[in-house]
Amino acid sequence: ARPRVGYFFTGKAVDTLISEKITDIKVDEIKATPVIVKESTSVYDAIVTLFLTDVGTLFVSDDEGNLQGIVSRKDLLKTAIGNTNTHQIPIGVVMTRMPNIVTVTPEESAYEAARKIVDHQVDALPVVKAVIENGQEKYKIVGKVTKTTITKLFVELGKN
Amino acid sequence: ARPRVGYFFTGKAVDTLISEKITDIKVDEIKATPVIVKESTSVYDAIVTLFLTDVGTLFVSDDEGNLQGIVSRKDLLKTAIGNTNTHQIPIGVVMTRMPNIVTVTPEESAYEAARKIVDHQVDALPVVKAVIENGQEKYKIVGKVTKTTITKLFVELGKN
Repeated sequence: ARPRVGYFFTGKAVDTLISEKITDIKVDEIKATPVIVKESTSVYDAIVTLFLTDVGTLFVSDDEGNLQGIVSRKDLLKTAIGNTNTHQIPIGVVMTRMPNIVTVTPEESAYEAARKIVDHQVDALPVVKAVIENGQEKYKIVGKVTKTTITKLFVELGKN
Repeated sequence: ARPRVGYFFTGKAVDTLISEKITDIKVDEIKATPVIVKESTSVYDAIVTLFLTDVGTLFVSDDEGNLQGIVSRKDLLKTAIGNTNTHQIPIGVVMTRMPNIVTVTPEESAYEAARKIVDHQVDALPVVKAVIENGQEKYKIVGKVTKTTITKLFVELGKN
């Protein structure tokens, strides 16, 4: 059932087909649901949220759902190990803040999202849509792409 | 340069080619270097090691390099948040212990490793070789496969 001869089955052609497939898949098709908290959330409550929702990264937004920050397990671990009272530290103090966050748009490819994760050594990217509010550019959080998202996609591609 | 006609270029055939490629890549080709600590290491020192080596998971072995346990960022976070003295808690107390660890062998495929990561909801798998020592089956740690490994492989596949 798998002919191993002929022009199309050289390594080169197969690699090109795979590359095409991977760059054809859009972030919009694979994005997962982000867990979003407020900047005033305590580090303690953020850690509890992390465990209850079974995620590795929390996103921080204002009341309008605009991206303000991102908090990783390591950010929380760094804070938890040095402080006895994580109830009194707001995550706004420990999060990575805009504009220092690597983001992706729904129109970008799965390949581009994975490349950003690898190049910037992050676990997760917020999927955002740029909007103008009161003359300022804001980024609405509409999803996330994480190493888990990419690993699941890899399994899907291998399944056939 | 990319002929779009002919039998081999139906969606079905492309998916089969991708699946073949992904299952042809062996764990041995993609495995990364694991960071290994001893069971007596304190939770505090384990957290410091995690930051210094820039990894997300630590593996625990005996003096012969046999797998005993695995410690995630969440295991450490759970311990750090509830305890003021992480210097006095050995990671042996908080780690996941054999035989409750999902492992992979160098001969298994990248697809199989990714499937185990997704199905068991873990961040990392130790790559092990089974050996018999004093009549007991032991597992030598020879590498690791993580969500990062799979994400990097995904980027490689998309690059062509």
